[in-house]
Amino acid sequence: MTSTTNHQVRLAARPSGLPKQTDWEMTEEPLVTPAAGEFVVAISHISLDPAMRGWMNAGASYIEPVEVGDVMRAGAVGRVIASEHPGFAVGAHVYGNFGVQEFALSDGKGVIAIDPALAPLATYLGTLGMTGMTAYFGLLDVGKLKDGETVVVSGAAGAVGSVVGQIAKIKGCRVIGIAGGAEKCGWLVDELGFDAAIDYKTEDVRLRLREVAPDRVDVYFDNVGGDILDAVLTRLARGARIVICGAVSQYNATESVRGPSNYLALLVSRASMTGMVVFDYAARYGEAATELAGWLRDGRLISREDIMDGGIAAFPDTLLKLFSGENVGKLVLRVEAD
Amino acid sequence: MTSTTNHQVRLAARPSGLPKQTDWEMTEEPLVTPAAGEFVVAISHISLDPAMRGWMNAGASYIEPVEVGDVMRAGAVGRVIASEHPGFAVGAHVYGNFGVQEFALSDGKGVIAIDPALAPLATYLGTLGMTGMTAYFGLLDVGKLKDGETVVVSGAAGAVGSVVGQIAKIKGCRVIGIAGGAEKCGWLVDELGFDAAIDYKTEDVRLRLREVAPDRVDVYFDNVGGDILDAVLTRLARGARIVICGAVSQYNATESVRGPSNYLALLVSRASMTGMVVFDYAARYGEAATELAGWLRDGRLISREDIMDGGIAAFPDTLLKLFSGENVGKLVLRVEAD
Repeated sequence: MTSTTNHQVRLAARPSGLPKQTDWEMTEEPLVTPAAGEFVVAISHISLDPAMRGWMNAGASYIEPVEVGDVMRAGAVGRVIASEHPGFAVGAHVYGNFGVQEFALSDGKGVIAIDPALAPLATYLGTLGMTGMTAYFGLLDVGKLKDGETVVVSGAAGAVGSVVGQIAKIKGCRVIGIAGGAEKCGWLVDELGFDAAIDYKTEDVRLRLREVAPDRVDVYFDNVGGDILDAVLTRLARGARIVICGAVSQYNATESVRGPSNYLALLVSRASMTGMVVFDYAARYGEAATELAGWLRDGRLISREDIMDGGIAAFPDTLLKLFSGENVGKLVLRVEAD
Repeated sequence: MTSTTNHQVRLAARPSGLPKQTDWEMTEEPLVTPAAGEFVVAISHISLDPAMRGWMNAGASYIEPVEVGDVMRAGAVGRVIASEHPGFAVGAHVYGNFGVQEFALSDGKGVIAIDPALAPLATYLGTLGMTGMTAYFGLLDVGKLKDGETVVVSGAAGAVGSVVGQIAKIKGCRVIGIAGGAEKCGWLVDELGFDAAIDYKTEDVRLRLREVAPDRVDVYFDNVGGDILDAVLTRLARGARIVICGAVSQYNATESVRGPSNYLALLVSRASMTGMVVFDYAARYGEAATELAGWLRDGRLISREDIMDGGIAAFPDTLLKLFSGENVGKLVLRVEAD
């Protein structure tokens, strides 16, 4: 144990719109010693997710909000450095809901052992973590994907979107990604093998969908909401399934959320729109991780992590990259050199 | 055959907003004689449906639009008065897509024989017609209703809504109707046996739902869209199903349709929103009609028709009642004294 101080990022105020520096408080505490049944994790990588913005709001949602004054909630990976827990030995690598801090005290609840020999630690926050689980169950279970269908995914160069599109390609589907900027779109087509990509910043999504989805859209995996959801609604195939995974375009809205004004396309197309929360599939994470790890090993699935340095003090600025669309793949904050 | 002239209502112009008198043209034609394989129906009752407003718009939907100059599309019942068709004898009563006119020439396609001894003719446009089919398949198939659930239906005193609520009661559910005005709400609770009714014209739907749906809402059958859809979205139970049957609040919108701004409740509640078109269930109409007729006979299901007089000349004004919310039950126009 090299450090005796734990630096933390706490929620200082509930933001209106994009989180500001003053919505956060940097705190430090002396490193604690584990009691019986506990262990301490030195965190190496923290997951940054658009959903974090929702956790900062008051009120009931699919998960309790983070309270003002609490360490910010975050998935993270690290190494056990002290343990009085029979299941987690010193030196073991683990994933857990450890929060935005350098060290976490845990009783093992919700903590999973991970193997750094099989994949880089950051991949356990991305393709082999909640990101991959969300893509896998959202597309296959909620979206009820069938071989040969046409799939559209928004936020396609993001953590979840890039995995969704690749799984759909593995399943023999025609895949169209919607992303912001030529670089991201090029990556989707050239590196990930998407059939087409639409740059929503410079192209008319609705018109381009007519060209690249001639058979219309069977499954739309929506990470963004807003105008793009409305555009895809105009191109649904009969019996289409829309998976509502998120709505990153709306998370920082200071007025009310923009509902999809083309929702009556659901009626015309006998289509459905279904919300998902990955936690519901916890009992089946193993099944998905095994299949995803196999595809990674075979080179059929590319996992890309966008790893930022600067330690936990860089968390507030790094989080904003998710909303400005700067990251490609899974956004991760590195906490120690490790 | 007492008349030799067929009076018709044709679409004269595509309306903007509520259809005006000038959007219609009254025409007359000499009564034709059926050729081989054809028959002539003297129409007695015409069905008026909110969906008609959509058929008057240009552009692709779940059905082709009515073209300007065409006789307005409508379901109707009547009696065969001349026939060269082996399947439809003079004197037989029939249901078909006969249009807004006094007499229809038919080749029998889509025409169903009906029995006026079993139910009044107008009931074949309502509970035993498309109205009843829509309620039955929408609630049970699309809504996947389970015994004991909480069901909310909007447009509850309308043709489809009143049948939806009664079927849900027969299935042992808690049923809440949303309708406009004390008279309609009283009818729902006192006559149809709904557990509660919310008068959206004088009550706060969202607040009232908290009181009358303490276990939240498992199935919401939506006929109206707009604010009421948004209010119900705030009270969904985990795994709720929303059936999108229509959106009468939006059909005459001259600006773009209002999307449901609370649609992210689908995510929080892992809920779905699915559109339906009754025609998809044509192969199973018999199954539904048999069950609905049984409930009618047993007095468990009350069929109410709001029958207007004035002949086909009264069609333009009568149609507007659907959008001002004046009718209770199935709105029907009587064409001949018969």
